[in-house]
Amino acid sequence: MKKKLLVVGTLAYDSIETPYSKVSKILGGASTYIALAASKFSIDCALVSVIGKDFKKEYIYLLKLNKINCDGVELIKNDKTFFWSGKYHQNMNSRTTIKTELNVLENFVPKIPKNYINSELIMIGNLHPKVQLETLNQSINKKKFVILDTMNIWIENFRDILEKVISESNLISVNDEEARLLTDEYSLFEAAIKILKMGPKYVIIKKGEHGSILFSKNKLFVIPAFPVKKVVDPTGAGDSFAGGIAGYLTNHKINFENIKNAIVYGTIFSSFTVESFGIDSLEKITKNDIFERLKEFKNLTSFKLDLNKYKL
Amino acid sequence: MKKKLLVVGTLAYDSIETPYSKVSKILGGASTYIALAASKFSIDCALVSVIGKDFKKEYIYLLKLNKINCDGVELIKNDKTFFWSGKYHQNMNSRTTIKTELNVLENFVPKIPKNYINSELIMIGNLHPKVQLETLNQSINKKKFVILDTMNIWIENFRDILEKVISESNLISVNDEEARLLTDEYSLFEAAIKILKMGPKYVIIKKGEHGSILFSKNKLFVIPAFPVKKVVDPTGAGDSFAGGIAGYLTNHKINFENIKNAIVYGTIFSSFTVESFGIDSLEKITKNDIFERLKEFKNLTSFKLDLNKYKL
Repeated sequence: MKKKLLVVGTLAYDSIETPYSKVSKILGGASTYIALAASKFSIDCALVSVIGKDFKKEYIYLLKLNKINCDGVELIKNDKTFFWSGKYHQNMNSRTTIKTELNVLENFVPKIPKNYINSELIMIGNLHPKVQLETLNQSINKKKFVILDTMNIWIENFRDILEKVISESNLISVNDEEARLLTDEYSLFEAAIKILKMGPKYVIIKKGEHGSILFSKNKLFVIPAFPVKKVVDPTGAGDSFAGGIAGYLTNHKINFENIKNAIVYGTIFSSFTVESFGIDSLEKITKNDIFERLKEFKNLTSFKLDLNKYKL
Repeated sequence: MKKKLLVVGTLAYDSIETPYSKVSKILGGASTYIALAASKFSIDCALVSVIGKDFKKEYIYLLKLNKINCDGVELIKNDKTFFWSGKYHQNMNSRTTIKTELNVLENFVPKIPKNYINSELIMIGNLHPKVQLETLNQSINKKKFVILDTMNIWIENFRDILEKVISESNLISVNDEEARLLTDEYSLFEAAIKILKMGPKYVIIKKGEHGSILFSKNKLFVIPAFPVKKVVDPTGAGDSFAGGIAGYLTNHKINFENIKNAIVYGTIFSSFTVESFGIDSLEKITKNDIFERLKEFKNLTSFKLDLNKYKL
């Protein structure tokens, strides 16, 4: 039987502007990217989220076609889907949020479908920490592995409840700014040490186009991003990254070495995501596309320097 | 017979302020770092530079003790040594120059000692492009490999002569900002493509704490920086990096694979350099220190993902 991954996060409409182009009201949301990336693996993936009356049926079909169980996606008929719009600056590494309309998210209470309360792995996307905590409370699998994402507004305004969620998580994936905000440490090393003390056994600090770093108590792994020739839209890169990690870890033994492998997949998935607006590229890629890019990435980043023949 | 590396660049006094500490009038200058890094390899390294009456004799002894030939270091008795002072911002990745006193550099005309006009490799540090060009004109080795560094003021104010120097170089090592300034391209890919068209067969773009990227016409290599726990002083990091590359390539066949290896050494040397003020750490490190860090770096950056057993 396939192992189960439960994904909790937003489904959204996004309007995005970059220095080169813009799009209006396309399919977005953290859980969209997470679930699509995770579902590239041979696992049983379910989505818990909420949508409004304006959410297109075809998007639910798209998720289902990718073998994502959508029983936990609640439709609120008298409200609208969560909407986000943002504008990327020239470096594509930073952005300004133009508008956030919470809509159905405002009163969202996640409900894990019965079949998934025993999921081996739970990936909790960026959401209000009270929703994240409620998800954890509904799970009955005491050995579950929990992967967490969060962002600045929750760190700044709901620290107590967020710290409770962090303490119950096994792996947290945040970007450099969030790690600094969470710990009040500028050095990413010091920040990671503090986060590890908050509960998680593993911390991943994402640095956008500069790659990411995995920390555990005694080990470290540093990896560059896949060098994408033309970044079209960075939206969802971090979620595709986390989704790749969650998907890989759902059907592999969880240890440092496999989290490294998982991060390689996450890195590859996010590189596809940024090459198009929204999920276009992520959804389309085949097993062969992924394999080819993995090979290319391994080739681009490895060196043969033979330490057994070491001489200066 | 050992192969010859000729290093041309500044010897200087530096006053440096970081968010945590400061030092006054310590030994600095691009060629100091370049030559010290390069001299870790079993090569015949010579330095061409200029100093004033205030330059301490012990610093020349220090260079000579590291087997750096100093016959080409000219002493100008009625002037002072080049002086630079700067202040690093909190991220340690950017800095403000507080003062630059050219002094002996103002009228510097490099003179390559006779024994070194046939050097196999020439590393031209960041200097006025007319000095860089004069160095190339004195070399008689038609098969020499030329590594070049430069900076914003030369790019902005002496572009014509700088372009001539670039056209005669084989490898250029610049940081991301310099690459963008030189090419008017924001994307590092586009920038590298333009620089390759200017002459060099290889372009390295340095990204400070985020590592570096090597470009040739058809190949790419991406490498993170060695993750240094506590950066004390970034001064000389780029020069130690270039010096490591120059040193390695002096006694290895020059091809893409060996330039990758050379960059690994450069990365390791610069990681030592930033752990102390000035050359303290770079000068002290032993063969064993380097070997241990190389092993650690390989371990920190490699993943075992077995592509032969690829399955999703």
